[in-house]
Parts: sequence; structure tokens; C-alpha cells
Amino acid sequence: MASTPVALRRLMESFAALPGIGRKTAQRLAFHVLDMPGDQAEGFAKAILEAKASIHNCKICQNFTDREICPICDSPDRDRSVICVVEDPKDVMAFERLQEYHGLYHVLHGLISPLDGIGPDSIKIKELLMRLQDGAVKEIIMATNPTIEGEATAMYISKLLKPMGFKVSRLAFGIPIGGELEYADNVTLNRALENRTEL
Amino acid sequence: MASTPVALRRLMESFAALPGIGRKTAQRLAFHVLDMPGDQAEGFAKAILEAKASIHNCKICQNFTDREICPICDSPDRDRSVICVVEDPKDVMAFERLQEYHGLYHVLHGLISPLDGIGPDSIKIKELLMRLQDGAVKEIIMATNPTIEGEATAMYISKLLKPMGFKVSRLAFGIPIGGELEYADNVTLNRALENRTEL
Repeated sequence: MASTPVALRRLMESFAALPGIGRKTAQRLAFHVLDMPGDQAEGFAKAILEAKASIHNCKICQNFTDREICPICDSPDRDRSVICVVEDPKDVMAFERLQEYHGLYHVLHGLISPLDGIGPDSIKIKELLMRLQDGAVKEIIMATNPTIEGEATAMYISKLLKPMGFKVSRLAFGIPIGGELEYADNVTLNRALENRTEL
Repeated sequence: MASTPVALRRLMESFAALPGIGRKTAQRLAFHVLDMPGDQAEGFAKAILEAKASIHNCKICQNFTDREICPICDSPDRDRSVICVVEDPKDVMAFERLQEYHGLYHVLHGLISPLDGIGPDSIKIKELLMRLQDGAVKEIIMATNPTIEGEATAMYISKLLKPMGFKVSRLAFGIPIGGELEYADNVTLNRALENRTEL
């Protein structure tokens, strides 16, 4: 609208460019920023710039960090014989929330997806192979999502590592705990049947 | 989590402080910013700062603008005999989207709400009265929301202006077009009945 100031329109567009933020929500958020105290808005802008400036990939596991080597790779309390391979840093956060996994991680920053032109060289597989050279790692857990790309990537890496003598495992997929059989989709149900365990 | 870099945590908190953005969404948005090209993230931060710096209330109607007097108050094509009084700048945008209303606006920046300690002096009523002194305005349309505070504010302003000879009107409230009687809540249905018009 002609009566909307340029700076306000630009702020709304910035919000609308974020994933899952529609036109209406973008408008609401922009107006909220205008209603904020000045120092809070400044803090928000600074948080964006500082996060962008200080955060990069860990030299070893490729997870986001503000140091050269992230606290997980650097920790003496971690089990260095297991690496959990995930698609992106959000997945590391999900596992860390559990507080049950004490091994290391490797973040691929993507999945192999030939249709999108993403081959094995476009994601951090080379960096994973480099890490395995010192012989400390015994098991690699493939924890990519159960999507076509996630499965293909897990398969690809597994085929690469198994001949080298590593144990390669995959997360279990099946009926979620608390879920009901009746409502499970066919693919999930089928997977749960295939991967049934002995009691 | 200890392994989350401070700058990332701060960015997630900034997003989580926005209305309607929960912890999970804040996390998703923060990671999206980290994945953005550098200049796009800078543009986002700049949009926040520039909107805050350049936008203030129009001297006349109190709507957000980057000029001294907003384009609507300044336009020669607007009908200067009608003022539509709204709660906040978002409401002006809603009316402008219609492209059916050609009068002026007045933004109250709030509603009278004694329980929250907001009296008539806390919102822009004084500024409205000032505008009415030159005699150009004939009608004031009260377009506050049909909430307790919206009704009370409309009532208060109406009681102030009617004795001064102004025509004060209120938006019509009732069954929304395309809605069904069956699903209308009682208050809306009651209002639709009370405000029935002759055919």
C-alpha cells in the first residue's frame, strides 16, 4: 500500500522471507518490533549480526559453534568410539536434549539428492572420512531422517564404510511410543513389521 | 544446552520474545538466519534498525509514517469531513486494503481499559479533539473492535463528541458474510438481532 512507509514494508518483507511466516504474521511481527522499546529492537538486530558473525562450522564435526572446535568434540567425557551422523545442527540439539547419547556427532549439512543436484561431494562426507582415519571410531550411527534422501544418504555412507571394517547402524523406525497402530501410515506400519524384534 | 553457542542462544531468545513464536519456531528461525547468505542477514538486521529509526507517529492522525505528516493526511484526494477512529495502525492497513474508504483516520494507539490502568489520557483522544477544532469534520466513525474495551472507548468518545454537534457512528457488527447462523456465537447473534435493518 502506498501509505505504508518503505522501512515498515521492508521489515514486513524480511519477516515474510522466513520459513513458515505468512504475510499476516509478518505484518504482526513488524508492528510488534515498532512497538518494542528501542534497546530491545537494537538487541534483536545485534543478535542477528552477532550470530552470523561468530558462528561457523566446527572444524571436526561441522556442527555450529563459536569456537574452532565445538564443546562436544572438545569434551573429555565423550565416547570417542561412536559417531552419530545427522543431517543438520537442529538434529544435534534434539539428541543433546535427551541427555542419553554420549558419543560424538557428524553434521552432513544436507542429504544426497540427485534431483536437486546435491551429490555426495556437496555434503560433509569427505570430512567424515577424514575423521575415521585415526582408528578411534568403532561405530557410526546413521541418524538421517526416514525420507527418500535420508535413506539414500544412510545407504551411501554405509556402503562406503562397511568395507573399511566399521560397524554402521541405523536408528530404529516404527510406531512412535504412545501412538496407535490404527492411525499409523502404511509405510511406518510396514517398517515396524519388517524390523520386528524377538521378545 | 551447554553446547549451544551463546550467540545462537541469544538469537533464538530474540525470536522467542516475538508474539506467537514458540521455542521450536524460534529455533527453526534462528537456524534459518544462520543458513542465510550474509548480506540477507545483514539486510534483516538493517530493516529492524531502520524501521525503528525512521518510523514514528503522524503529527495529525498518529498512524505510523516516515514523514512528518502521513500520505493519507497529506492527500488532496481524501474526504476531510470523515474520520475513522481505530485502535492501532494495523487497522488502518485493513481499511486501506479495501480501497473503499476515502476519508481520514485517527489511530488511538490503545483502548481505554481501567483494569490495566489505561485511562482516556493514555491514548490519543486529546489529539483527536485537537483535529476537530477547525470545523471541517462532520462525521466520526468509531471502528474499534467489538470487545469490552473497544465498546467502552467508542462509548466514551461518542459521549464526548455528540454534545459538540458531531455525527458519531459505529461499525456494524453481526453475522459475517458467508457465515452460518447455526455457528454464530450468542453475543454475535444477539447483536445481529438488535441491529436488524428494515428491508
